[in-house]
Amino acid sequence: MMIIMNISSTPKQIEAVVARIEVNGFKAHISQGDERTVIGVVGNHNPISTREQFVRLPGVDRIVAISRPYKIASREFIPQNTTFPLDGVQMGGDQVIMIAGPCAVEDRVQLLETAIAVKEAGAQALRGGAYKPRSSPYSFQGLGEEGLEILAEAREKTGLPVVTEAMAPELVPLIAEYVDVIQIGARNMQNFALLHAAGESQHPILLKRGNAASIEELLMAAEYILSHGNRRVILCERGIRTFETSTRNTTDINAVPVLKSLTHLPVIVDPSHSTGKWEYVTPVARAAVAAGADGLIVEVHLNPEQALSDGGQSLKPERFAELVRQSRAIARAVGRC
Amino acid sequence: MMIIMNISSTPKQIEAVVARIEVNGFKAHISQGDERTVIGVVGNHNPISTREQFVRLPGVDRIVAISRPYKIASREFIPQNTTFPLDGVQMGGDQVIMIAGPCAVEDRVQLLETAIAVKEAGAQALRGGAYKPRSSPYSFQGLGEEGLEILAEAREKTGLPVVTEAMAPELVPLIAEYVDVIQIGARNMQNFALLHAAGESQHPILLKRGNAASIEELLMAAEYILSHGNRRVILCERGIRTFETSTRNTTDINAVPVLKSLTHLPVIVDPSHSTGKWEYVTPVARAAVAAGADGLIVEVHLNPEQALSDGGQSLKPERFAELVRQSRAIARAVGRC
Amino acid sequence: MMIIMNISSTPKQIEAVVARIEVNGFKAHISQGDERTVIGVVGNHNPISTREQFVRLPGVDRIVAISRPYKIASREFIPQNTTFPLDGVQMGGDQVIMIAGPCAVEDRVQLLETAIAVKEAGAQALRGGAYKPRSSPYSFQGLGEEGLEILAEAREKTGLPVVTEAMAPELVPLIAEYVDVIQIGARNMQNFALLHAAGESQHPILLKRGNAASIEELLMAAEYILSHGNRRVILCERGIRTFETSTRNTTDINAVPVLKSLTHLPVIVDPSHSTGKWEYVTPVARAAVAAGADGLIVEVHLNPEQALSDGGQSLKPERFAELVRQSRAIARAVGRC
Amino acid sequence: MMIIMNISSTPKQIEAVVARIEVNGFKAHISQGDERTVIGVVGNHNPISTREQFVRLPGVDRIVAISRPYKIASREFIPQNTTFPLDGVQMGGDQVIMIAGPCAVEDRVQLLETAIAVKEAGAQALRGGAYKPRSSPYSFQGLGEEGLEILAEAREKTGLPVVTEAMAPELVPLIAEYVDVIQIGARNMQNFALLHAAGESQHPILLKRGNAASIEELLMAAEYILSHGNRRVILCERGIRTFETSTRNTTDINAVPVLKSLTHLPVIVDPSHSTGKWEYVTPVARAAVAAGADGLIVEVHLNPEQALSDGGQSLKPERFAELVRQSRAIARAVGRC
Repeated sequence: MMIIMNISSTPKQIEAVVARIEVNGFKAHISQGDERTVIGVVGNHNPISTREQFVRLPGVDRIVAISRPYKIASREFIPQNTTFPLDGVQMGGDQVIMIAGPCAVEDRVQLLETAIAVKEAGAQALRGGAYKPRSSPYSFQGLGEEGLEILAEAREKTGLPVVTEAMAPELVPLIAEYVDVIQIGARNMQNFALLHAAGESQHPILLKRGNAASIEELLMAAEYILSHGNRRVILCERGIRTFETSTRNTTDINAVPVLKSLTHLPVIVDPSHSTGKWEYVTPVARAAVAAGADGLIVEVHLNPEQALSDGGQSLKPERFAELVRQSRAIARAVGRC
Repeated sequence: MMIIMNISSTPKQIEAVVARIEVNGFKAHISQGDERTVIGVVGNHNPISTREQFVRLPGVDRIVAISRPYKIASREFIPQNTTFPLDGVQMGGDQVIMIAGPCAVEDRVQLLETAIAVKEAGAQALRGGAYKPRSSPYSFQGLGEEGLEILAEAREKTGLPVVTEAMAPELVPLIAEYVDVIQIGARNMQNFALLHAAGESQHPILLKRGNAASIEELLMAAEYILSHGNRRVILCERGIRTFETSTRNTTDINAVPVLKSLTHLPVIVDPSHSTGKWEYVTPVARAAVAAGADGLIVEVHLNPEQALSDGGQSLKPERFAELVRQSRAIARAVGRC
Repeated sequence: MMIIMNISSTPKQIEAVVARIEVNGFKAHISQGDERTVIGVVGNHNPISTREQFVRLPGVDRIVAISRPYKIASREFIPQNTTFPLDGVQMGGDQVIMIAGPCAVEDRVQLLETAIAVKEAGAQALRGGAYKPRSSPYSFQGLGEEGLEILAEAREKTGLPVVTEAMAPELVPLIAEYVDVIQIGARNMQNFALLHAAGESQHPILLKRGNAASIEELLMAAEYILSHGNRRVILCERGIRTFETSTRNTTDINAVPVLKSLTHLPVIVDPSHSTGKWEYVTPVARAAVAAGADGLIVEVHLNPEQALSDGGQSLKPERFAELVRQSRAIARAVGRC
Repeated sequence: MMIIMNISSTPKQIEAVVARIEVNGFKAHISQGDERTVIGVVGNHNPISTREQFVRLPGVDRIVAISRPYKIASREFIPQNTTFPLDGVQMGGDQVIMIAGPCAVEDRVQLLETAIAVKEAGAQALRGGAYKPRSSPYSFQGLGEEGLEILAEAREKTGLPVVTEAMAPELVPLIAEYVDVIQIGARNMQNFALLHAAGESQHPILLKRGNAASIEELLMAAEYILSHGNRRVILCERGIRTFETSTRNTTDINAVPVLKSLTHLPVIVDPSHSTGKWEYVTPVARAAVAAGADGLIVEVHLNPEQALSDGGQSLKPERFAELVRQSRAIARAVGRC
């Protein structure tokens, strides 16, 4: 932590800052510039909670953090990529993992047929929501546990590992009985009770970036899970909210190389939510793989026009098969498979 | 709902859209422009779930919603202001309500002294967090139920009604035993399980706008609570996330008159979170009252430099007293008290 | 400038950074933390152009600027408020200055009648565009020099000083012959050729913040003007672009106290453009004065429904008169007039 | 244009709207929904300037545009791709065009060496700034006409067509004498005087998207140029401003397929400005090609640490050669070259 003083700060004010640093058990390191004095706080193991003590002392202009606020998630501390098996395939390895399925589990037949279709099209995992976060209280809210049972049946029938979303901490153990990967949705990225529960689970967690969350906040949300003992976290870029309204969200494609450099965790992209329109899903899926993503999560529906949610952004199975073909071609072009 | 066709859409495509409209039990109303055909869908009582059916039909350019997706929250349906008593004062009435207190309950003495100080300074209600959502897992997370007991004691000692945050649905009944108003924080504005629980509570709910939530989404989150039976919701503007980094958030002051025109619910502003720096809290508090806010919620701490959270944006009691004086002067200038 | 090294940076890399610092004629000041080394660059008189040299040296994590990139605009260098006369009134003084008039000069009669109306309603200056920046090439582009002549006539008839926009550097001298204050519009805030021309003018410059410009960039644009010799710059907050679509822009009300603390220049607010809807103009005008603005610039039109531009956000003269009454009441409540 | 009435609008208000529509020479088309009346305005050839007349009539809730505000730029009017030769290569054709060079022309030797290096690395065109828009008045502002002469010499020596930026309308004819493509920078995307001058030029125009410009505004800026007679416009996505601070801008990768569907004009991406850090340039360049971009514009510098501007985001020639190799592999994977 560096404390930057005002141009007009007095020696007395500087002394007071130094005294406060030492009272807290740290060492002060004064650097006298031409214009300003900068005081380094050395030995500060918890920069966040001590920041408050200095920011309003007289003569202080502002405070700059030097350490990053996450540790276990950081590539500086764990340089090698985190990889883990997902029922036969390796997440975070050479293969680009394709996760596909409907936004919501709507009924048994729909889901089983979709599961078979996405498997044939080349998916390595199945997605489907049993509990649905919806902006409107009047929209379809999901089948709940019945949906989990259907997902488990699809798992058995196809052999595909299954990803589904948990919306509340008390649902985590129940969901863990039925599926392979527990998703934390964008709206819940800072639902800390849920992150805590996910951290105590043994299941891999697919953590979606909030639509207004910075990359640093995403890594801090991952740190919640990691610090509670669960080291298998998949990060997912699914679009951020910007002023642009021609797409549902703005795919932050920069986030892929940025995350790959800051963290060792696997990074996937959701081109369905990040664009919101089926026409744009395949080009953005290709872009994600080209940028270095470890996988994709894509909404696929047998009859998108009949979907109870997100029909506009869902692909039909044959278009998804084409997405897989094109994405694999890109994967090979960047030396993956 | 209006379906706007492409310039090059064919009569056959238009027929197919009309057929789909009628199959769904609605009436189609065709409007032939010079360039494009627009098809109105009449009798559409649930525009959200049916939208998906049309957006990808051949020849469709885009869909425009005509109805607003919230009803009970809308001033179009309930023109008169919602007001309700808050232990002696009237929320949503002539008086601008001042809610003040520390970010977090840190210990008993701190809270009781603060409660007395903010009451003397002119506050009508006390705020204080027992459960704290924190971006970092390494930050102070709140005292939990012990904090609730301290808040209840402060309530008894000062007579001030108390506001505290619930972070998970299962905590709502517990918190309701201790306090008067249950807050749903910005990060949980779309935690639908929590909104559902709040809707089943008998307590007024202080609903904070998410930092990337549109005004419409805030009203839809309120609709969740209202539609589950709880009609006492206070909306709170607490700053949105923008590209500007000189303040913690950007106070969306426009939201005050926009909300007052769209909804009958009371609207308050949190100038502490919406600025993030104590120097800016009082000017923005004045602005909020001038724009028509029904109240303010302000962080006050006896020793902000020692605060376990949000010290940089907390006011000392004497500065808060000055904020109250200035805000009351503004309130009088706009014909309130 | 502080250079923050990677956790794993080597002594050799640190030496190389120090050598580069010294080659450039600066002094290096090493601060060894528990985790990282931070190297201060002392004597750095031009932090911007030298930053590039260090950011990509091996072992460098990132660079933090210590100095602010503007000088003459900074309150650290010039603590007292800048004030200057505007034809009888004092900009930046105790009085809140009301500038009003139509978006565009449409014809002689319209402008003269509006000028008289806004003067009667309490305005201290007249605005009106002769050259109009329009998003569409098919929209009305302004009357040009004929508009300037009409503005000069209105000036003569009413005694009100006149503000109008310059869209290109070569127009600055021409416009200066006719009017009192030259406006640089939001879209041109970083039109550096225009800023340069404005800096060589003797006229006060009303500089509008770009809709995606940070406060720091606004101050650097002002620095362009100031550094070319013109010290009379009025800063104008007119709304920034965010994800919120219920208003044309988001009024950054925080910018008022932030600017008042960072700079000595007068700060005004344009509630017409920052909201985009006439219903919201008066509440936001009140908020601006309450937050500490030195003035307002408001669009007023005799028949807004007939306006060639911005009719939706223009006030009729009688509503503007009410805005002035309410804003003056707020001004008195904050100790101004 | 559709006029959406309030739920409580009266028959009289509806009549008044209809009367106003007919007075303007249009036809009204009334659609009576269950909740609201919607009135279509048929025959409206200039939706922008007439909108204002209706938005504030009593009973009007809001107005929805049906037509898009650009015509010549629209794929609806001109379905086939616009392509044109650029000194031997075809812009907008099968080949992905690589434009590369330094941010600024700094001296003759630097530019000539860079030009040779980027040609060898596989570039089809050379970029280099002679006039530089800089946020700070204290930064290097470019060599001016001397820079143009150096660019022309590089053109002669290498045979590469040259792109350089014009910052003011009066510079367009001068620049056109020296180079092949005139760039309009992001900060000038709505400098309408400059767009007008570009429209009267015979040279292809490389139009960069403003950092807060919507895709629609970019197309309207292109429409300015097209409507003044110049049909050779290249659109460039170079990153938009969002809340994310870990990169200089956020590359709006969605914009590539969105633009390709809305317009027939060629679309290129600038991964140097859209990321701001050299480490991220190559992954984002690959993503752009994968998403369907027709070209890339990349900053290359012989000694980025010595660059007078943008050193942090410039690639060394050997890294650029690697970018070209990888991008060509992606191009082949999507069926281009």
